[in-house]
Amino acid sequence: MQIDPIFQVAQEAFLFYKTLSGKEKGDFLDKIADILESQRAEIVPLAVRESNLPEGRINGELGRTTGQIRLFANLVKEGSWVEATIDPALPDRSPLPRADIRRFLTPIGPVVVFGASNFPLAFSTAGGDTISALAAGCPVIYKAHPAHPETSRKVAECIHQALSASNLPAGIFTHVEGGIAEGQALVQHPVAKAVAFTGSHGGGMSLFQLANQREEPIPVYAEMGSVNPIFCFPNKLSNEMGALAKAFVGSLTLGVGQFCTNPGLLFVPANQAKAFESVLIEELKGIPAAPMLHSGIAQAYYDSIQHLESQGELRWIKVADPKHLLNGSTALAEIQVADWLKDKLFQKEVFGSFALVVVYQDVAELSEVARQLQGQLTITVWAETEELQSQVSLINLLEEKCGRLLFKGAPTGVEVGNAMQHGGPFPATTAPNSTSVGVYAIKRFARPIALQDMPQDLLPDALKDGNPLGIWRRIDGNLTK
Amino acid sequence: MQIDPIFQVAQEAFLFYKTLSGKEKGDFLDKIADILESQRAEIVPLAVRESNLPEGRINGELGRTTGQIRLFANLVKEGSWVEATIDPALPDRSPLPRADIRRFLTPIGPVVVFGASNFPLAFSTAGGDTISALAAGCPVIYKAHPAHPETSRKVAECIHQALSASNLPAGIFTHVEGGIAEGQALVQHPVAKAVAFTGSHGGGMSLFQLANQREEPIPVYAEMGSVNPIFCFPNKLSNEMGALAKAFVGSLTLGVGQFCTNPGLLFVPANQAKAFESVLIEELKGIPAAPMLHSGIAQAYYDSIQHLESQGELRWIKVADPKHLLNGSTALAEIQVADWLKDKLFQKEVFGSFALVVVYQDVAELSEVARQLQGQLTITVWAETEELQSQVSLINLLEEKCGRLLFKGAPTGVEVGNAMQHGGPFPATTAPNSTSVGVYAIKRFARPIALQDMPQDLLPDALKDGNPLGIWRRIDGNLTK
Repeated sequence: MQIDPIFQVAQEAFLFYKTLSGKEKGDFLDKIADILESQRAEIVPLAVRESNLPEGRINGELGRTTGQIRLFANLVKEGSWVEATIDPALPDRSPLPRADIRRFLTPIGPVVVFGASNFPLAFSTAGGDTISALAAGCPVIYKAHPAHPETSRKVAECIHQALSASNLPAGIFTHVEGGIAEGQALVQHPVAKAVAFTGSHGGGMSLFQLANQREEPIPVYAEMGSVNPIFCFPNKLSNEMGALAKAFVGSLTLGVGQFCTNPGLLFVPANQAKAFESVLIEELKGIPAAPMLHSGIAQAYYDSIQHLESQGELRWIKVADPKHLLNGSTALAEIQVADWLKDKLFQKEVFGSFALVVVYQDVAELSEVARQLQGQLTITVWAETEELQSQVSLINLLEEKCGRLLFKGAPTGVEVGNAMQHGGPFPATTAPNSTSVGVYAIKRFARPIALQDMPQDLLPDALKDGNPLGIWRRIDGNLTK
Repeated sequence: MQIDPIFQVAQEAFLFYKTLSGKEKGDFLDKIADILESQRAEIVPLAVRESNLPEGRINGELGRTTGQIRLFANLVKEGSWVEATIDPALPDRSPLPRADIRRFLTPIGPVVVFGASNFPLAFSTAGGDTISALAAGCPVIYKAHPAHPETSRKVAECIHQALSASNLPAGIFTHVEGGIAEGQALVQHPVAKAVAFTGSHGGGMSLFQLANQREEPIPVYAEMGSVNPIFCFPNKLSNEMGALAKAFVGSLTLGVGQFCTNPGLLFVPANQAKAFESVLIEELKGIPAAPMLHSGIAQAYYDSIQHLESQGELRWIKVADPKHLLNGSTALAEIQVADWLKDKLFQKEVFGSFALVVVYQDVAELSEVARQLQGQLTITVWAETEELQSQVSLINLLEEKCGRLLFKGAPTGVEVGNAMQHGGPFPATTAPNSTSVGVYAIKRFARPIALQDMPQDLLPDALKDGNPLGIWRRIDGNLTK
C-alpha cells in the first residue's frame, strides 16, 4: 500500500474542503444518503451475506445510516454547531483597549476511521464516525473492516459517486483495505490528525498507544464496548418480573448479543434470583439460535465462556452449546456479589449473548459494586420510584461510571439524536468527554481557533458582522441569532 | 507525602461538590476572589520577592486573577455552560417509540493542576486551571511550583478560608508541595481524572506519557509554549516600520520575555531587513535589563543562546550579555529563510527575550514556511489589506498551525474572555481542542452524560421540565430558554 500519496491528496483536499460552506457540505452528505438509498437493493444482500445478520436488521441499519447522514447534513446546513463566539473590540477600555476576538470551531484535518464488524453500515464505511468527520470538514481515510469487504467497497463507491456529483475532490474520502499493519501505518502517518475506532479493547488500546507515541500525538476516539450492568431493585422486580425478563432477554439476544450496549451483568436480589432465573430461561426458549458475524467472533465467544467455566465461583444456568460453533447460543451464569467483587475478570466483556446474574443480599452492597465498577457505556437501574428516592447516593456513584444512565427499558437501541451520549469513562472509551453517536459526535473532529482583528472580508461567514448565516452566536457572552 | 489520603478526601468531596448548584459554586468562587483582594497587601510582596517581577506587574496579575475567578463565577451562576440537551419521549413514534433522553455536562472528578513559574498568581494556585476545574465541579489537587512556595501557600490559605466560609469540605482543594517525583505520583494516582499543566515541553510531555501509561489513561491539558511567529509583509512594514518595531520590542521584552506567547520568530522581507533591524536595535535601547524569574531559567536562557551561537547560519544582531546572569538581556539573530527551513532547532522555544529575524526573498517562500511550521499558540500577520487579499491560501495554511491568528498588535497580552483561545496544535499543547484561558477552559473538566427516562425529581435542575434554572437548552434540536 502506497500510504504517502493517500495522505497527500487528503491534505490537499482538506485545505479546500474546510473552506466549503455548511450548505455545500450538507448537500454533499445528503447526496451520499440519496445514493445509498438508491442502491439499497444491491447493498443489503451484500451486507446480509457478509455479516450473517438478517435482511430486516440490515434494511433497518441502512435506514439508520441514511437517517444519521441527514441528521449531520441538517446540523451543518443550520451551522450553529461551530460555537461562534465574538468579543468585539473595546478601543476605549481602560487601562488597556480590547482587541476584536472571534472564535469558532474549525476542522482538525484528515481523520483515520476504522470500521466496526458488528454494524456493517451504521458504524462502518458511511457510518457515524465517517459522516461526523466529513460534516466537520475533515477528509476521511477509511480502513475497511475485513469482515465485510464487498459491502465496504460498495458503500465507498457510493461516497465517491456523491463526491463526483458534488464536484468535490476524490481525496475527501479514501477507502483502504488491509490488515493490522496497514491500520497501524495509517495511524502513524504524520498527516493524520485523529483516529476513530469502534471495536475490541485490545484493538482500541493498541491504536491509542500508537497514536500517543507519534512525534505529534493525536487523539484516538475508541469506543471499546462494556458490560452495561442492569441493577434490579426488589419491588420493581416483584411488580414487573415478566416484563423485565422480556426486556432483558430481548436486549441480551438482539443481534446475537453483538452490540456494544449488550447487557452482560444483571444484579438481582438473592430472594428473587431463583424465580427470576426461571422466567429468564422460559423467555430464552422463544429465541432461536442465530449465526454470529463470523467464525472468529464465534470462536472468541466460546473461548471466553470456556475460560469462565473454569471459575469455580460461577453456577451455570444455561450453557452455550459449542456444537454448532457459528450459532452464538445464549449462556447465563450466576455469581454471588461477594465473589463478583473479588475479580475484575467478571467485568470483562464477552462479546455475544452471555450475561452474569450477580446475586446480592442487600441493596446496601450495591454501593461497593458501584465503587468497583469500571467505566461503562451504559448503566440501567430498574427500580420503583420510592426505591430510587432512598438511593440518591448510589445513583450519584453510578453516574461516575457511565456515559448513559437508564431508568426504563434496556440499553440496546442507541437513539441517534441530539441528546444521545454514546461513550463513557475508560475502559468503555479512550475519550469520555466525547460521543460517537448523536450530533455532538462532530465536535471530536473540530478545534477552536480565535481570529484577532481579522479584516471582515477574510473572516469566515460564521464570524462576520451582521451574521450572514443567521446562526446562534455568543456575542459579549450573550447568545443571539 | 501521604498520597492516598489526599485523593480519598478529594474523591469524597467530589461526590458532594458535584451536586452543588451553579449559584453555590459561583458564590464560593467569588469568595475566593474577595479574600484574595482583601489580602492583596500580603500577597503582592511575596509574589514580587519570589518571581523578581515588578510590583506593578504583580498587582496587575492579581487583578487578572480575581477578574478571571469572577468570570467563571458568573459563568456557573448563569449555568448554560452545561449544554443541556433534551430529546423528549415520543411514545407514539413508529416503528419504535423514543425514550426521554436528557444530556448535560457533569464534572469528571478530582483534577491535578500544576502551577506555572511565570505567572505566580494567574496561572498558579488560584489561576485559570484551578478555577476552571473548581467551576466545573471538580476538586483540585494543586502541585505548587517550587519557584514561589510562599506565594502559593498564602493563596492556598485564601482558598481554604473561602471553603471554610462557604461551609464546604476542605478536600475540594489540596495544596501539595514537592518535586518531580511528587508531581508524577499525583498524576499516577487512580483517583485523578485529568491533569492541567503550563510549562516546558519536556515537563508537559513527561506528564502526558505518564498519564497515558496509567491503567486508566487520563487527559493531560498541557500548554507547553511556542515561538509565536510574526509575518511582516512589505507594504505594511514600509508604511509602519516604527510602530511595528515598537510593538515587536514591547512584546518581546514584556516580563523579560517570559510569556508563552512571546514572539520568537519575525519573518521580514530581505530588502527591508537591515533597516528594520536598525529600528529594532534603537527601540531595544530604551528597555532596561531586568531579572528573570529565577537563576535556573536564566541559566537555561543563556545555555540555549550559546547553543544557537554555535550554529553558523545565524548572524547575531544583538548578543545577550551573560555577565549578569540573572538579567535576561535581549538577544536577536538573523537567519535566511532557506537555512531556517533546514532545521527544526530554529523553531524551538528559547524561554526569554530572544528572537530570530528570518529573512525571506519573496512572499511566495512563506507558504513553505507555513507548511513546515510546528503548532503554535499564536501566529501574527502584519500586512496591509491589499496584501492580505492575495494571501488567502497562506492564511488558510497558517490557520492550521495555531490556536489564535492575529492581524494587529502583538501576541502577548492574552485577553481573558469568552472568545479567547489559548491553545493550539501540538507541540504548543497536548490537547488542541481545548483552551486554558477564557470561559471554554471549563469544558476540559466536564464530560457529557445522558439520563434516559430518569424520574423528574431525580433529574438535575438543568434538565428538569420547566427549566427552573432559566438556562439555554437545546430541546428537540432547538435552542430555547
